[in-house]
Amino acid sequence: MKVSRLLEKVRKQKPIVHHLTNWVTIYDCACVVKVFGASPVMAHAQEEVADMARIASALVLNIGTLTSDFVEAMKSAAKSANNKGIPVLLDVCGAGATPFRDIKCNELLDQVHINIIKGNASEIARIAGENVQTKGVDAGKVEKNLIGVARYLAKTRKATVVITGQEDIIADQDKVFLVRNGDEMMTQVVGTGCMAASVIGTFAAVHNDLAEAAAAGLACYEVAAEQAAKKSNGPADFKIRMFDAIFKLNGKTVDLKQKIVKK
Amino acid sequence: MKVSRLLEKVRKQKPIVHHLTNWVTIYDCACVVKVFGASPVMAHAQEEVADMARIASALVLNIGTLTSDFVEAMKSAAKSANNKGIPVLLDVCGAGATPFRDIKCNELLDQVHINIIKGNASEIARIAGENVQTKGVDAGKVEKNLIGVARYLAKTRKATVVITGQEDIIADQDKVFLVRNGDEMMTQVVGTGCMAASVIGTFAAVHNDLAEAAAAGLACYEVAAEQAAKKSNGPADFKIRMFDAIFKLNGKTVDLKQKIVKK
Amino acid sequence: MKVSRLLEKVRKQKPIVHHLTNWVTIYDCACVVKVFGASPVMAHAQEEVADMARIASALVLNIGTLTSDFVEAMKSAAKSANNKGIPVLLDVCGAGATPFRDIKCNELLDQVHINIIKGNASEIARIAGENVQTKGVDAGKVEKNLIGVARYLAKTRKATVVITGQEDIIADQDKVFLVRNGDEMMTQVVGTGCMAASVIGTFAAVHNDLAEAAAAGLACYEVAAEQAAKKSNGPADFKIRMFDAIFKLNGKTVDLKQKIVKK
Repeated sequence: MKVSRLLEKVRKQKPIVHHLTNWVTIYDCACVVKVFGASPVMAHAQEEVADMARIASALVLNIGTLTSDFVEAMKSAAKSANNKGIPVLLDVCGAGATPFRDIKCNELLDQVHINIIKGNASEIARIAGENVQTKGVDAGKVEKNLIGVARYLAKTRKATVVITGQEDIIADQDKVFLVRNGDEMMTQVVGTGCMAASVIGTFAAVHNDLAEAAAAGLACYEVAAEQAAKKSNGPADFKIRMFDAIFKLNGKTVDLKQKIVKK
Repeated sequence: MKVSRLLEKVRKQKPIVHHLTNWVTIYDCACVVKVFGASPVMAHAQEEVADMARIASALVLNIGTLTSDFVEAMKSAAKSANNKGIPVLLDVCGAGATPFRDIKCNELLDQVHINIIKGNASEIARIAGENVQTKGVDAGKVEKNLIGVARYLAKTRKATVVITGQEDIIADQDKVFLVRNGDEMMTQVVGTGCMAASVIGTFAAVHNDLAEAAAAGLACYEVAAEQAAKKSNGPADFKIRMFDAIFKLNGKTVDLKQKIVKK
Repeated sequence: MKVSRLLEKVRKQKPIVHHLTNWVTIYDCACVVKVFGASPVMAHAQEEVADMARIASALVLNIGTLTSDFVEAMKSAAKSANNKGIPVLLDVCGAGATPFRDIKCNELLDQVHINIIKGNASEIARIAGENVQTKGVDAGKVEKNLIGVARYLAKTRKATVVITGQEDIIADQDKVFLVRNGDEMMTQVVGTGCMAASVIGTFAAVHNDLAEAAAAGLACYEVAAEQAAKKSNGPADFKIRMFDAIFKLNGKTVDLKQKIVKK
């Protein structure tokens, strides 16, 4: 897989990426899609989500600040996306922090088809049925082998599973990718996880193999982060630089710097 | 019209600009009002919107992440603003993307008086009755003569109409202004359209001729954008510089650099 | 009180600070908690707020964009926090601007225990029963002696009261602190007041004397602001620098630069 080819496709096709996301990082989710050259749209009214999903090329759901009504709108949007055949990503943000989050994630996973399940280690472990605790929205400790957890969840949910962390794990029913790019500074910025979901959604909008799309998207995102971290004065400055590094990301550089490993 | 005179008035009077806007760009809308020296307030509870509009000098509505309840609150706020005689601006964000947005815009236009209707080319064309599609919240193609569309809508809705784009078009029932300032970088930043609405609202708060207020506000905003673009490293850095350029905007510079054309 | 000791505790304990805050500054509230080294979480669904408060070490409430439902969720979260014995802070954002805000603040103060009441001069004066007007969310004029107002409110509500301004006033039932740090640039940035509340909440999460926690937190925040202001090109650049200054804040520097006065 040549990462630059997928980056090129995003920039040429400028896909619409429909989000129902949280109120904390909603702006940054839109931004990251935009600096990649795609077109973000956020819409959550029950009356229009199905229509909006219909004009989009991918749907990104994030339960960061969920309510019951909001999850109902997610279901309508996802059903519409399922019918159209565009990929649906669910960021299980905060799963394992409260029972409500676990219940709503499972409702979504049971009632619509989620093509990509994304979270940090303890969130994904929780969704896979492990007895772990998420510290609010920050990852808690997980004892289990994470690749095994991702593989298991991918099989039981017939989905691509993404665990973000120092080393990202991407598993579908056949294969596993690791992405070893990124910088520690990403953990100091609110919203890098949510943005990762938006990036994966953006790449999934233009490439059918969703595990490849996720790996390519994360590699681009994290190579830009590496570039930004070199010059940054702290997390806030870093975020600005990261957006601008994505905007100017060079295909050749990404192909050189990407550390995607197929297991 | 001397643009600097209106800028001066904003800075001296520090008008309260009440917003019911979308959850994506709400912070930037507040920021842009603030760096112009005015006082933004965001409030959307049905129980208080009329009271908040009463202490404000302009009301800015934006349907970017609308729900039915939210539009009902907009109506209450707008009725209060209409009664007080302060200008009401509606940003028809995403009109033409879903039927729900079109219906809700028309409801607002029918049930309260909107003094300024603002959008991009395909949004305004849609509200004017054209059969066009908006790409989420990004402008779609419009074949028709845009000045004609703006004029037509201004007459039928007895409003000032603003179409933002490379060349902004401002039409009321008597006249047309074009604003030819700005920089291509503005199109790379999420929220420049929403912020334009807040800027127009801020200037409309201090000047009775709303077309003049819109032209002056956009000229100031876009001259600052031109200054910011010169030094910027990318869209995120550009936005920071644009806010700071607005904050320090010099009246003389604006008068020199503004490219407002009366048609 | 050694300010650096409390800063150290925040960084070591990394407390979870649960917020129900407004949609304007929600991202910045999360950011400021994060750059101090703590763990922000935002959650407002009635079904989960009690559970989320239970895993947190402090609860921050902010009525900036309140609705009735949202205030009900605040009550549930606060009851849970009260039961657990963690501090609850209420930012009475916009009190004195509309009757609805006054009513809802008083409902909260009557129905749950608020440990820290925080606002600007006219907001706190209003909550203390004075007949003053808040200009949207910007402070209006208050004729009364502010220290007296803070003391009175602290006594009647058995709470720690914080009035932010050029000189911050912190009063509990026994003592008064003044914090004389900060920079005028803070008044040019949307959200510095909301962030102050998050900072106080973060320090209250690790220190039982809430007035001391508030004073220490504000001193740290404002010393960082002083550092940021020295190099900044305007309010937007200032905010970025302030976050990064907080992230790198040196304990010794804070102890040297802090201007906390005990009255």
